[in-house]
Amino acid sequence: ESKALMDWDRWLVMGIIGIIVGTVGFLIHQIIDYLIKLKWELVKNYIQKGNFHMTWLYILGIGLAMIIVSSGLVVFFCPTGAPSGLPEVIGFLNGASIQHIFNIRTFVGTFVSCVLAVASGLFCGPEGPMIHLGAIIGYGLSQSKPKILGMNLPSFTRFWNSADKRNFVTAGAGAGIASVFHAPVGGLLFTLEEVASFWDIKLAWQTFFCCMTAAFTTDLISSSLCGFVYRGQFGFFKAEMRILFWVKNLLDMSVLAFVPAIFLGILGGLLGALFVFLNIRINRLRMWFFNTIPKTSLRKTAKLLESVLVLVLTITATVYLPYFFHCTPVKNLPEFEPSTKPENISQPTWHISEYNCPLGTIQTGPDGANYSNRSFNEAAALLAENGMRGITYLFRRGTHEEFGYASLFTALVFYFLLSCLTAGSAIASGLVIPMLYTGALYGRIVGLILVSILGVQTDEHSAWIDPGLFAAVGAASFFSGVSRLTISLTVIMVEITNDVQSLLLIMLAVMLAKMVGDWFNMSLYSSLLKLKSIPYLDAEPFVCHRKKWLNLELFAARDVMKLHVRVLHVRENIAFLAQLLANTSHSGFPVVYKSKPDQAEVFLGTITRLELCVLLENEAVFEKETTEDSESCAPLLSYQKIRVEKLPNQQRMTMLLGRYTTDPQYQQRFINLEPYINKSAVSVQAHFSLQRTYIIFRSLGLRHLTVVDLQNQVVGIITRKDLISLQLEEKLGLQQSSNQLHSDDELLD
Amino acid sequence: ESKALMDWDRWLVMGIIGIIVGTVGFLIHQIIDYLIKLKWELVKNYIQKGNFHMTWLYILGIGLAMIIVSSGLVVFFCPTGAPSGLPEVIGFLNGASIQHIFNIRTFVGTFVSCVLAVASGLFCGPEGPMIHLGAIIGYGLSQSKPKILGMNLPSFTRFWNSADKRNFVTAGAGAGIASVFHAPVGGLLFTLEEVASFWDIKLAWQTFFCCMTAAFTTDLISSSLCGFVYRGQFGFFKAEMRILFWVKNLLDMSVLAFVPAIFLGILGGLLGALFVFLNIRINRLRMWFFNTIPKTSLRKTAKLLESVLVLVLTITATVYLPYFFHCTPVKNLPEFEPSTKPENISQPTWHISEYNCPLGTIQTGPDGANYSNRSFNEAAALLAENGMRGITYLFRRGTHEEFGYASLFTALVFYFLLSCLTAGSAIASGLVIPMLYTGALYGRIVGLILVSILGVQTDEHSAWIDPGLFAAVGAASFFSGVSRLTISLTVIMVEITNDVQSLLLIMLAVMLAKMVGDWFNMSLYSSLLKLKSIPYLDAEPFVCHRKKWLNLELFAARDVMKLHVRVLHVRENIAFLAQLLANTSHSGFPVVYKSKPDQAEVFLGTITRLELCVLLENEAVFEKETTEDSESCAPLLSYQKIRVEKLPNQQRMTMLLGRYTTDPQYQQRFINLEPYINKSAVSVQAHFSLQRTYIIFRSLGLRHLTVVDLQNQVVGIITRKDLISLQLEEKLGLQQSSNQLHSDDELLD
Repeated sequence: ESKALMDWDRWLVMGIIGIIVGTVGFLIHQIIDYLIKLKWELVKNYIQKGNFHMTWLYILGIGLAMIIVSSGLVVFFCPTGAPSGLPEVIGFLNGASIQHIFNIRTFVGTFVSCVLAVASGLFCGPEGPMIHLGAIIGYGLSQSKPKILGMNLPSFTRFWNSADKRNFVTAGAGAGIASVFHAPVGGLLFTLEEVASFWDIKLAWQTFFCCMTAAFTTDLISSSLCGFVYRGQFGFFKAEMRILFWVKNLLDMSVLAFVPAIFLGILGGLLGALFVFLNIRINRLRMWFFNTIPKTSLRKTAKLLESVLVLVLTITATVYLPYFFHCTPVKNLPEFEPSTKPENISQPTWHISEYNCPLGTIQTGPDGANYSNRSFNEAAALLAENGMRGITYLFRRGTHEEFGYASLFTALVFYFLLSCLTAGSAIASGLVIPMLYTGALYGRIVGLILVSILGVQTDEHSAWIDPGLFAAVGAASFFSGVSRLTISLTVIMVEITNDVQSLLLIMLAVMLAKMVGDWFNMSLYSSLLKLKSIPYLDAEPFVCHRKKWLNLELFAARDVMKLHVRVLHVRENIAFLAQLLANTSHSGFPVVYKSKPDQAEVFLGTITRLELCVLLENEAVFEKETTEDSESCAPLLSYQKIRVEKLPNQQRMTMLLGRYTTDPQYQQRFINLEPYINKSAVSVQAHFSLQRTYIIFRSLGLRHLTVVDLQNQVVGIITRKDLISLQLEEKLGLQQSSNQLHSDDELLD
Repeated sequence: ESKALMDWDRWLVMGIIGIIVGTVGFLIHQIIDYLIKLKWELVKNYIQKGNFHMTWLYILGIGLAMIIVSSGLVVFFCPTGAPSGLPEVIGFLNGASIQHIFNIRTFVGTFVSCVLAVASGLFCGPEGPMIHLGAIIGYGLSQSKPKILGMNLPSFTRFWNSADKRNFVTAGAGAGIASVFHAPVGGLLFTLEEVASFWDIKLAWQTFFCCMTAAFTTDLISSSLCGFVYRGQFGFFKAEMRILFWVKNLLDMSVLAFVPAIFLGILGGLLGALFVFLNIRINRLRMWFFNTIPKTSLRKTAKLLESVLVLVLTITATVYLPYFFHCTPVKNLPEFEPSTKPENISQPTWHISEYNCPLGTIQTGPDGANYSNRSFNEAAALLAENGMRGITYLFRRGTHEEFGYASLFTALVFYFLLSCLTAGSAIASGLVIPMLYTGALYGRIVGLILVSILGVQTDEHSAWIDPGLFAAVGAASFFSGVSRLTISLTVIMVEITNDVQSLLLIMLAVMLAKMVGDWFNMSLYSSLLKLKSIPYLDAEPFVCHRKKWLNLELFAARDVMKLHVRVLHVRENIAFLAQLLANTSHSGFPVVYKSKPDQAEVFLGTITRLELCVLLENEAVFEKETTEDSESCAPLLSYQKIRVEKLPNQQRMTMLLGRYTTDPQYQQRFINLEPYINKSAVSVQAHFSLQRTYIIFRSLGLRHLTVVDLQNQVVGIITRKDLISLQLEEKLGLQQSSNQLHSDDELLD
């Protein structure tokens, strides 16, 4: 029973992570909304007079100021923050070691850069960076030594190991999504499906708590503050505010609705694959171009200039496109801010979507209801407002002809291309909102086509022919087409729309989009991982050589292992150790042991570089005599001390190693490694099938795997890098082309 | 790219499983509803006249007929069908081999037994059996050789292996839940969280498809048929029908609502733990009692009589309890069948919940709306109707005082005790509906207390004080308190109520209930697994000795391994093999190999009993000469033939083994096992920590793990049974008490 209790500190940390991530999520959204509002308030007068040029100048000027700071931060202050940090987090959780992704600099840089980038008007969202921020918070809180006012707060040293580190990062990432979407379960599942490589039900259940806390915190703070002004409703959660794209009227559905859903699913897969293809192509081009610039400062400036260029394009499209559209009268919708106070009724406030349309008035009709003669600009509503608001418009039911083909198509083309260009430029930006938005646009077009053919239906049995419904289905399909998510995406869609009724449609579209997309290429995140050369190990190995899948059962562990392993002996010379550490960068070494002088040396276990470093730092454990019988004279280092997963000071270590190598007295000193070896280290035999080797490596979450022969003698070692598909392709491809497939008989020689 | 295509048959099978499970789910619900309606129609006249005794006689008589068939089927026809089959499915997916759970007899027995048990009026639901039925369908479709009209349909022999078997069973089980709850994502997550022990994203994604198909099929058939009568709306999915307990008005929520939610969570944990405790206690008592009966037929009859007794108790409570309650006038609710045709308005049909209340009439008022002076009996609505309908009443919002304390408390006490008694008796029954129902009852009581204190609130800010809301929270909390589910439960609640707004309340209650419950005991399913002695391996080992958790890092693989392993040689004598197979029941054997005559025999790989049997059946592979150099003369058996995981005919095998053992010619025959060995079989060294050994065994999904020493010689073997916690407790407990903790120095001797 005490097992659960002993874990209280873990729950505490999870709770704190949730609260802080929730607060950060609230801040991001509030600041973005506030800045956007401020920006457009400034140009309100120009735009109402139809002065597009001045509007352009102002909006671009403000945008430029923002983007220079945003991009500058990423480029000069924290290079790892760009673009969304999500692939890096995924790689880290898979076991790759990536520098600087979890420090305070990256946190500040990502936060500010993301806020400013979204506020500047670029077609991007804050979700990707939010996941990264959540992960940083999870890492920071569990792995740091907090100090407040010079006092050392209790730090959670027992979490300073890779497993727990991963767990907290996973929870933090989930909380990030939970907070921005008000979707605790969706966030949790997103992390489990896409972000985390290792997880079990215990971690899921802690992440569940963390996500809940994050969503609760965001809701609680949002309930009382709107644009940083106290609204006097602290602790009152309105469904309107909580559910991002609340669908109020569920539609009874005909089975015929599955036909357009199938179409949308396929379309989503095609467009999604195209998006991934374009994005990766653009990113590759970008990398190539920047690599041609030799000087670092120049290269960085070029990156900044690229963001500026994207902004100029975006702002130009945003400001001038509405010029070509007429004003559409507002029927009952779009509804404006629900918090509008009744006293404003006669003098309605201006909204971005009204753009240069004549300001309407609201009159109270004879039956007490309010009537308005407002009108709005379709293109402004779709492009000038931020993506979130746009999605709300598109998802709305019962607004069959609010948006016409022209505005939808225009927005689709510009949004698709510009968001593809934006993702990957040197700002911290996310793709979730653009993905939902692009999908919603073509979904609504399909809905509109149906309405055009069949007319606006009011009959109960045909109510499903509603562009709002298909906008939601389309959004899910495009999201799936790009990210290839299934379960978490479905749950997120339910959580943000509160529409279980169209669940089956969404599931179908999501499934088809993933299938069609998978036909063409990998998901965006996988492609980015590959592009960034992050060593990521899939759950199962897929190796392709000359367009043919290789069956790894036909290869053996020996085909990929590194030969000439540096092995250690149980009793090892200090000078030798120091030399080894100084000259290699391996992170682990097999230790061998000879029980009788005439026997061969067999594999006993492994020891990591870190453990060796800690041992070498403590001269007390050295043994002075070389004789075999004085084994137990040196004191042992405690488990606690060995276990802490922080590298000792790098400089001191180098100095120490140098001394050990050169000072002749250490030639005569030895260390007994036996108490510190990981004796439960798995090994595989050289003839093990490569498939099995990969599965063992991946499912046990190893970093190095010793390869032994039938007599348990070390013959090679396999590391994470040997198993990434690129490496496998190369090694195995070479072998296959020279027809050197090992026959199994060889084994018994 | 072709990898995805090659899997088309897998998707096909998944789809077919979904369609069939969906149809079965539809049938179960329809038949149950139909039978219940029929039953009560029969006694309608008696009950309307207030003749309780005759009602009791009739209802009991019909119930008895049903329960005798239901229980008789389970007891005499398919012993494994009882009670819900869920623990057996969980055990199977964990790797335990359990006989007869996936055959056609069990299917028929479970189906009929479940339908009749629920229809008879027992306090149980069809969900547990539905999961089992789904699993059987998944197993049957993928593993059988279908024959229609004497024609052999193409069978999917490539799925005849344990991994795929498990995958299809998992998908089928998920589809079962998806179908009965119309909750595709919930079903999927339920399977992943509770049912499946091994899964990856690929399986999740196939299960997703299977669940979607199942939910779609159920919806599609339900849309056109209601009580087996065509309703003329084929393919029209009404939200009313699809969303089981649809909450139509979302409530804006105050943060104060979290206080009762916390209370409900704790209460759910306490009551859930109590329920598990009682249920296990009763089951143990039951087992003990039945085991005292020596004669099988008598024991079976006793089991049947027990079910009859439970039924008598239940029916008596159901029929007579409403006698003590007055009629409550219907306000606007409960709404009756939405499919009621307009022409019935003036002469409303009788409903079970009206019981002996005077039949009301509906009049059309001056404003065109319909007014009714109907009244209903609270206890009848809660107890006499089936649980599903009861939950609908309890979840309904805006019906603050529809049910009073008296009826709620009475129903709670009876339902809690009787459902606890029912679960485990010899019928196929599920606990999901009873769990939701019990929780909804006390949740509503808590809500009612709030209403009593604060009054019925109509103010926007206090609208959350609604007993319907807390009924839903309570239902989730009790479900979690008993089953300890978290993620899947939350998603199921959203899918069956379409209320994302109260998600945070539900999450909080679920979390607390699980925490409090875990404090007292294990989840019901884990307890049942233990009670039924199904060898289940948790993801992580928890071994408790004298109320203290043992740290398995302190023990080694050698502490639990079986000594005196029967090893085979690469070249083995037929007579010896036959003898070995005849005399042991081991399912796998290590194969050893000696490369040079003077060397020790080292571990090379393993071979399973099944493979040996297949080999022995094919005399062609035997080698006649004992000389070493004639190795390659015997033909090889193809991989396909060896791989098929079906045991050859048992009788033939026994006969064959007998002949091989006795006939002297086989003493001189040999078989070269080398081509058939699994050479990628993992082994651990005897000094491996037990924790690590367990993790390796569990995460690689092994059935037997060879233990070797430093020279790679076989010293022992570990099987699944050696690792279940009971076994570990015994072995390690013994060791600890005799203080024989191995010191690590021993290793180096």
